[in-house]
Amino acid sequence: MIIKRPMNTKERLLQYLKEEEGRFVSGEKVSSRLAISRSAIWKHISRLKEEGYEIESFPRKGYALRSIPDYLLTAEIREGLKTSLIGQGPIAYFRKTDNTNNQAKVLAYDGTPEGTLVIAEEQSEGRGRRGRTWFSPPGQGIYATVVLRPLIPLNEAPKLTVLAAVATADALEGSTGLPVRIKWPNDILVRDRKMAGILTEIGTEMDLVDFAVIGMGLNVNIPELSFPDNLRTPATSILIESGQTFPRVRLLQSWLEALEKYYDLFRRGSFDVILSRWKLLTDILGKRIAVDLPGRQYAGEVQEVDENGVLILREPDGTFQRIFSGDITQLTS
Amino acid sequence: MIIKRPMNTKERLLQYLKEEEGRFVSGEKVSSRLAISRSAIWKHISRLKEEGYEIESFPRKGYALRSIPDYLLTAEIREGLKTSLIGQGPIAYFRKTDNTNNQAKVLAYDGTPEGTLVIAEEQSEGRGRRGRTWFSPPGQGIYATVVLRPLIPLNEAPKLTVLAAVATADALEGSTGLPVRIKWPNDILVRDRKMAGILTEIGTEMDLVDFAVIGMGLNVNIPELSFPDNLRTPATSILIESGQTFPRVRLLQSWLEALEKYYDLFRRGSFDVILSRWKLLTDILGKRIAVDLPGRQYAGEVQEVDENGVLILREPDGTFQRIFSGDITQLTS
Repeated sequence: MIIKRPMNTKERLLQYLKEEEGRFVSGEKVSSRLAISRSAIWKHISRLKEEGYEIESFPRKGYALRSIPDYLLTAEIREGLKTSLIGQGPIAYFRKTDNTNNQAKVLAYDGTPEGTLVIAEEQSEGRGRRGRTWFSPPGQGIYATVVLRPLIPLNEAPKLTVLAAVATADALEGSTGLPVRIKWPNDILVRDRKMAGILTEIGTEMDLVDFAVIGMGLNVNIPELSFPDNLRTPATSILIESGQTFPRVRLLQSWLEALEKYYDLFRRGSFDVILSRWKLLTDILGKRIAVDLPGRQYAGEVQEVDENGVLILREPDGTFQRIFSGDITQLTS
Repeated sequence: MIIKRPMNTKERLLQYLKEEEGRFVSGEKVSSRLAISRSAIWKHISRLKEEGYEIESFPRKGYALRSIPDYLLTAEIREGLKTSLIGQGPIAYFRKTDNTNNQAKVLAYDGTPEGTLVIAEEQSEGRGRRGRTWFSPPGQGIYATVVLRPLIPLNEAPKLTVLAAVATADALEGSTGLPVRIKWPNDILVRDRKMAGILTEIGTEMDLVDFAVIGMGLNVNIPELSFPDNLRTPATSILIESGQTFPRVRLLQSWLEALEKYYDLFRRGSFDVILSRWKLLTDILGKRIAVDLPGRQYAGEVQEVDENGVLILREPDGTFQRIFSGDITQLTS
């Protein structure tokens, strides 16, 4: 069951203007329908304009909505969002911030509820794993982070990476029809180029995860020539691969819905279902790889990803290594 | 080699007064020795008095140090502290705070350097694992947290708990001569009663620990009747077990020194040395125990604590479980 938060006045006003599909609505009508004063209407209209909505207003005719901005605005995200948890609580929206994971961690640390969403149109310090840069130009990508509070011991934390990767791949495939693959642990590739990345960070004691923030960077409408040349893995975008621009709000909604679907499975103890789906989306099993960890390298054959989401590597001498996360390179055999 | 931070003016003034062992020193002498003005002296004397130092001052005679307060003051902690990292950087001192781990996490998140120390005379929300309360009366215990930034992957994080337990046990045994034992993962017992507890918390990506805060609560001069009756494990204090009160500053210094010693071993890749010491301090190996994890229980025989600090439990059916941390109960066989 999906429990929807009631709309606030500004959202109800916007909803009304949308229903009128560009026709003028008089201040009087708005006032009686929403049961608010004329000055309150004026205040909310000003706010909406500040957010980028184009609204025409004429003294006798009233207000008409001319265009909806291509921003990831709260009201747009919530409209039609089919979740009951993720994206239904607090949403922190930034035109520009350092990065959404940092902001989400601050909120998580301050006790924000599970399901809180942080979004930015642009990141000045977009981050991937190990502090690497994530190219985050304004308005052409999705930079979003969700706060979760799963009741799991620390050694099950790698499950969250698997869950997030599957959700992201599913959402992307479902929305675009592109051939999406997961590169363990947290890259989403299309035709061997990186289209999205996931960054999971955790606050924890040893035996109990306090919070997890799951961040995603998704290259949506970024043209080929915009990418920096010096990327570790070649990048791509939905625009490049499909030849079309995609509405970011709908993509974000798909991601939130997929995350919720898999998080629900996870909470019901059905991690095996997620893992089965993951196995269909990855090519790593049975492959010979090298793994780079801080201060250590391993090489061997990927035996499995176990019931905790941990990658089990079989070294040439038969030793098994349990890898939570790391940089992998496929070795040619 | 121990690199000492130079003393600031206030600390140099205090040092001078201490050297004079209660004799009066004239303002003129202080002024010329420290090369500061009379009004600067007056300002620093006021600060020292605020901190609890009793300093007599007479117009013609000058200043004399009458007593050093029983507080864990920065100048007292640093005096003679034999470390080069831990306790030599920023020290955050609170007469009272929620708890030192929370304060340390805020600092760690803001980028405070490795070795930062947080101390409180009293905690309003002293915490143990899983949000349990740690009894933290003012002035009779040590409540301290150290920030570390080890470059290790997340699956090696349990090493830090082992390291902290060994350091705490060593410091306590060395300072008091009491028969100290470690109850895995993070309790320090004397004659089966809890004298100290350690709480390690981590901020991390999956493959790289960003920071660890290691907090300790130590019952120093707490009399038997002060403890609440409803404690999960019976508590004790150094006072109860030894019949003596102990100076807290010296105990804290021992703890910081022991932490640094074992952290150095850890950074040099000699975790095996720490683990050997740990094995001498614990009785858990080979014992039948039950482990309580969030939403799950295990029971079996303790096979070992492995090279990552993870407890390996052998269940009756021969399955092995890897336990990062948890509540254990010893089963009677």
